Amino acid sequence: MISAVEVVDVRFPTSASLDGSDAMNPDPDYSAAYVVLRDDDGSEGHGFTFTIGRGNDVCCAAIEALSALVIGTDAADLGEFHRRLTHDSQIRWLGPEKGVVHLAAAALVNAAWDLAARRAGLPVWKFLSAMSPERIVDCVDWRYLSDALTPGEALELLRAAEPGKAERIAELERDGYPAYTTSPGWLGYSDEKVVRLAKRAVAEGYGQIKLKVGADLADDRRRFAAARAAVGPDVRIAVDANQRWDVDRAVEWMSALAEFDPWWIEEPTSPDDILGHAAIRRRIAPIKVATGEHCHNRVMFKQLLQAEAVDFLQLDAARVAGVNENLAILLLAKRFDVPVCPHAGGVGLCELVGHLSMFDYTSVSASLEDRVIEYVDHLHEHFTEPTVIENGRYRAPRAPGFSAEMRRESLRHYTYPNGPEWSRKR
Amino acid sequence: MISAVEVVDVRFPTSASLDGSDAMNPDPDYSAAYVVLRDDDGSEGHGFTFTIGRGNDVCCAAIEALSALVIGTDAADLGEFHRRLTHDSQIRWLGPEKGVVHLAAAALVNAAWDLAARRAGLPVWKFLSAMSPERIVDCVDWRYLSDALTPGEALELLRAAEPGKAERIAELERDGYPAYTTSPGWLGYSDEKVVRLAKRAVAEGYGQIKLKVGADLADDRRRFAAARAAVGPDVRIAVDANQRWDVDRAVEWMSALAEFDPWWIEEPTSPDDILGHAAIRRRIAPIKVATGEHCHNRVMFKQLLQAEAVDFLQLDAARVAGVNENLAILLLAKRFDVPVCPHAGGVGLCELVGHLSMFDYTSVSASLEDRVIEYVDHLHEHFTEPTVIENGRYRAPRAPGFSAEMRRESLRHYTYPNGPEWSRKR
Repeated sequence: MISAVEVVDVRFPTSASLDGSDAMNPDPDYSAAYVVLRDDDGSEGHGFTFTIGRGNDVCCAAIEALSALVIGTDAADLGEFHRRLTHDSQIRWLGPEKGVVHLAAAALVNAAWDLAARRAGLPVWKFLSAMSPERIVDCVDWRYLSDALTPGEALELLRAAEPGKAERIAELERDGYPAYTTSPGWLGYSDEKVVRLAKRAVAEGYGQIKLKVGADLADDRRRFAAARAAVGPDVRIAVDANQRWDVDRAVEWMSALAEFDPWWIEEPTSPDDILGHAAIRRRIAPIKVATGEHCHNRVMFKQLLQAEAVDFLQLDAARVAGVNENLAILLLAKRFDVPVCPHAGGVGLCELVGHLSMFDYTSVSASLEDRVIEYVDHLHEHFTEPTVIENGRYRAPRAPGFSAEMRRESLRHYTYPNGPEWSRKR
Repeated sequence: MISAVEVVDVRFPTSASLDGSDAMNPDPDYSAAYVVLRDDDGSEGHGFTFTIGRGNDVCCAAIEALSALVIGTDAADLGEFHRRLTHDSQIRWLGPEKGVVHLAAAALVNAAWDLAARRAGLPVWKFLSAMSPERIVDCVDWRYLSDALTPGEALELLRAAEPGKAERIAELERDGYPAYTTSPGWLGYSDEKVVRLAKRAVAEGYGQIKLKVGADLADDRRRFAAARAAVGPDVRIAVDANQRWDVDRAVEWMSALAEFDPWWIEEPTSPDDILGHAAIRRRIAPIKVATGEHCHNRVMFKQLLQAEAVDFLQLDAARVAGVNENLAILLLAKRFDVPVCPHAGGVGLCELVGHLSMFDYTSVSASLEDRVIEYVDHLHEHFTEPTVIENGRYRAPRAPGFSAEMRRESLRHYTYPNGPEWSRKR
C-alpha cells in the first residue's frame, strides 16, 4: 500500500550554456518534477515529468494534488492505478488528459511501473515483454480509441508479435537499439561547433543526427550545408523547427532546405495542428514529417495517424500519462504501420524511452526498420542507472526498474529554490 | 503599472445538491481560481477561471507563477499583456496553450480586460464594440492561423460588419440577446423535476432547453420523451453527452434518441477528437453537432471548423486564454459561417460570455440567427453585477467592466479550505 509520496522540484541551470536552445525555447533550465512513491512494505518507485524551468513548481503542486488519490491504495494493479489518476472527475476538468495535470499523472504512473518492475527484479522493458497480451491490453484506457483500434484488434497485434520474442530480447541485450543524436545541432551553437560535433557523432557510430532550424533561414542553410559537407551524403540529417511555423511557412522553409536532403522535419507547426501537419506532409513529400513530443494524449496520436499526418511518431515518456498511455500509442502506431522514434533528451527522458522502444521491438512492432531513439548527452550523470550508448546504440538496461532514479546528492544540490546550486545564485 | 495580484481559491459545495451533475461529472463543486489585478493608480481588474473542485488550488498556483510575468508591467496594451502570458518559453512547455497554465492565463487576461473597460467606463461588450478593426486584429495571436484566416482577411470581415453597428448596439440594449437554459436537464434530477423545470422554462420565454444524456439509454429515452411531451414540438431540445462516447457509440445512441427531435448533440466524444466529431456529424445528420467548452485553444477550433466537425461553436470565456483568444475564435467562426453559442453555467461564466456574444453580434457576425447563449441559474448571487434574464434573453450589461467581480463576502465565506463554509465541514 502506498504510504507516502515525496515530491521534489529539481532544476538544472542549463540556460547558462545554451545546451537545449532551439527556435521556440531560447533559454531552458532543464527541470524535473520528481516523485518517489513509498510503499509500506519498504519498496519504492521513482518517476518524474520533464519541464524547462518556470512552472516546474506548478507540476509539483499537481503531483501533490493527485497524490491524495493514490495514498492508501495499492499500486500493484497498474491499469487501475493509471485509471485512478486520469479519471478523477473533478481534476479531469483541468485537462481533460492534457497539460499540467497530465504531466503530473505521468510522473506518478511511471513511478508505479518503476516500483512494480523493481519488485519483479526486471528492467521495465523486460517486465513489459514478460506480460501477456491480455494483461497489456488491460493496462490501456480504451476510451475514444475504438474507431481506430479495439481491444480485440490490439490482442491480435500482440499475439502476432509473440513468435521470435525471445530472440529479439537476446538481440537487444547483445546489440542494443539504434540511436540518433541531437547533440551537434542546438541553435545556440557556432557553425564550427556544429561541424565538429557532427563529425564526432559519425565517428562514434551514429547513422543519423539532428539540427535545430526555424529562427533564420540564411543561418539554417549555412549550418545545414556545413553539416552535410562534414558528414557526407549517407548520414541522415533530420531537422527540427520546434513548432515555429504556420503551414505555408513550413512548406516554403523546407523547400529552401530540400537541397541538403533532410530526413525528416520535426514539429513544423503547432503540436495541436493535426490537419496542418497533414497538409505540410502532403506538400513537402518526399521529405518526411515527425512529431509527438508535445502531443498530449492518445486521442491526438490517433488522429495524427488517421489523418496520415506523420511518417514517424515521436512519443514522449512523460507528457502523456506514463507507460499505460504509451502502450496505447505503441499499439496505434503498429496498427497504422508508422515507426515510433521517441523524443528524448531533457532530464532523464533517454533513461525512460529506451525501455519503451525495446518493448516495442520485442512485443509490438517486432521491427527496427527506420526506428531510432533520440539521444542527447546531457545530465545523465545525475541518474543511478544512466543511459549508455555504444556504437551509436542504446545499451539495453539491466537493472530492475525504469532507470528513473536520480542520485540523492543531485536531488539535494539542484532542489529549487533552496538547494545549494540555486541559493548561491541569489 | 500592475503592482499586485491577489489570488483566491473559491469553492461552492454544489455536489451536495447534484446541480451540475452529468454523465462525466457526477459530483462537481463549482469553483473559481479568482484573481484581482491591482494597478498602482488604484484601479483594479477582476477575473477568474472555472473548475469543478479538486485541483482548483493547482490553477491558483499557476496564476501565482504567471503573475511574476506581469507584476511591474503595464496592462494597458491588451495585445502585449496577452502575449506576455502565453509566450513565456519556459511556461509554454507545460501546455503549450492548454490545460492548467492556459486556464490561469485566462483568469489574468480577463482581469486585464475588466480593468481596461472599467477605466473606459464601459461594459466589455461596448468597449470591444468601440475598438477599431485594426486594434481588434492587433489583440489576436495570429500564430498557426494563417492557413484558415489571415490578419488581412480578419480586417475585411470586421470592416464589413461596421455598417449597422450602432443599431445593433441599441437593439441589444433594448431587447437583450437570446438564451437557452440547461437548468431543467441535470442528470441527477428526477423525471418529475425535469418536466416541471422544462415547463417553467418555456413559460419564462425560452425557446430552447438542454438535457444531459449519456449515462443510461433507457433513462435518456424516458426523460427525453417526458420533456418533449411537456414542451411540445416547437421548443428546441438540445442534448449534451459531456464526452461520454466513442464514435460508433455516439452514432448508435443518437439514432436511438432521434425520434424525440434533438436540436444538437453536444460533446458526443473526446473534446480533442476533431476527426471523431466530423465522423459523428456526417453519420447523424440532420441532427446537429456542438462542442467547444473543453476545446483548449484557437488551433483546435480552427481544425473543428476546417474539418466541418461542428454546426455550433461553443466557446468558453475562461478555458482559452481570455478575451484575446476568443476574438480569434469569433473571427474564425465568422470565416467559416458557423454560429457561436457560448458555453456558460459554472461560476460566473454566464456573466462573462454575455459580453462576448454581444460583441459578436455588434461587430463580427452581425447576426442572431440560430445563436443562443447558455444560461444556468446557479450562483449568480455571488456577483456584484449578476446576469439578468428577461423573457428568455440576456439583458445587456450596463456597468463598466466584465461583470466578473465576486462579492467580497462570498469570496471570504467560500475560500477553500479556510473560509467558514469549508472549515465548519471539517
